[in-house]
Amino acid sequence: MKKPSKDTISRLALYLRTLQELSKTRTTTTISSQDLARELTISSDQLRRDLWYFGQFGRRGVGYSIDSLKNKLSQILGLNKSWNVCVCGAGNLGSALLTYKGFKEQNLTIVACFDVDPKKFDKKKGGVTIYPLEDMKKIVKSLTIEIAIIATPVNAAQAVMEQLTQCGIKAILNFAPITLAAPAAVKLRNVDLSTELFNLTYFLSQA
Amino acid sequence: MKKPSKDTISRLALYLRTLQELSKTRTTTTISSQDLARELTISSDQLRRDLWYFGQFGRRGVGYSIDSLKNKLSQILGLNKSWNVCVCGAGNLGSALLTYKGFKEQNLTIVACFDVDPKKFDKKKGGVTIYPLEDMKKIVKSLTIEIAIIATPVNAAQAVMEQLTQCGIKAILNFAPITLAAPAAVKLRNVDLSTELFNLTYFLSQA
Repeated sequence: MKKPSKDTISRLALYLRTLQELSKTRTTTTISSQDLARELTISSDQLRRDLWYFGQFGRRGVGYSIDSLKNKLSQILGLNKSWNVCVCGAGNLGSALLTYKGFKEQNLTIVACFDVDPKKFDKKKGGVTIYPLEDMKKIVKSLTIEIAIIATPVNAAQAVMEQLTQCGIKAILNFAPITLAAPAAVKLRNVDLSTELFNLTYFLSQA
Repeated sequence: MKKPSKDTISRLALYLRTLQELSKTRTTTTISSQDLARELTISSDQLRRDLWYFGQFGRRGVGYSIDSLKNKLSQILGLNKSWNVCVCGAGNLGSALLTYKGFKEQNLTIVACFDVDPKKFDKKKGGVTIYPLEDMKKIVKSLTIEIAIIATPVNAAQAVMEQLTQCGIKAILNFAPITLAAPAAVKLRNVDLSTELFNLTYFLSQA
């Protein structure tokens, strides 16, 4: 089977979020592919192509069952189990992530934060304890952490990434504005907040 | 001409970031489309298709000139001029954005922050003054702000979005974990930090 692209996976994540919102507000249990595509602001062709990788959804003339599509997408994205996540860096961005309301409802639980500042050790933010960076190996193991978020200053990011991979972490989300290099067995996503803004500058400059 | 999709624009942003990194580290001035695609971890077909919308780049047997492709992408994305940006909400996430190093090198300058907490008024964070939310109209005008970032709590986000559009803002990036509705003339991007993590949970659950 052809593997879905990174963009397809990102769109599935968006579909899931939209279905979660819809299931809170809609009174009907099904939605036509046209209506769903409109909610998602994508073409219904794109929607069908993305879902095609994962089998048959929806029924002609009936559309999609919101709940079953939502559950199926959760399962595809691995969200039918819960994941323990750590945040590296307890600065402004790290603190924002510790208190971010969007994760928990997705089965993503931040269970630890690491920092280098002794003044922060053993303190809590958003209910999460801040540990010394040196204790990473021990904490990652004892709390079965599988996903890490890097929210350190730029100059610390690469070293923290290496430490994480040495602790056996296989999935890392990097918010530091620098492109990091990870070993092939590790899935690393670099989040660049400025690229989000580029969509807006593109739009404004076309207007 | 067929309009490029949102995903194409997001990828152009990624291409630009990668070329900016490359131009710092590479000694050669050109790069083959295969090498560039490898750096970008996309297929060279995808790269060609995305650039195709905007005309002819690169030369057979020579590849792309890093500088000229970088400049062309900057221009397409509207980054050949500078943009003034405001941040709404001076909490953890807002503060992180005010001190985020990634914006300025992209011609994006955060010039004001708005909050409702009187204790924060007229204070500075990351060199940016925090103003009362009521002064938005005046400040947006006097500082020619064209782009806004929402980093408020969930329950304030929709009202702030409406206030921004009333002030004439046409491009908004929303970080509050709630999908906002904007008037058709306004470009609104909802950034959901958990969807970034879904790519990782997908990867881990395939392994």
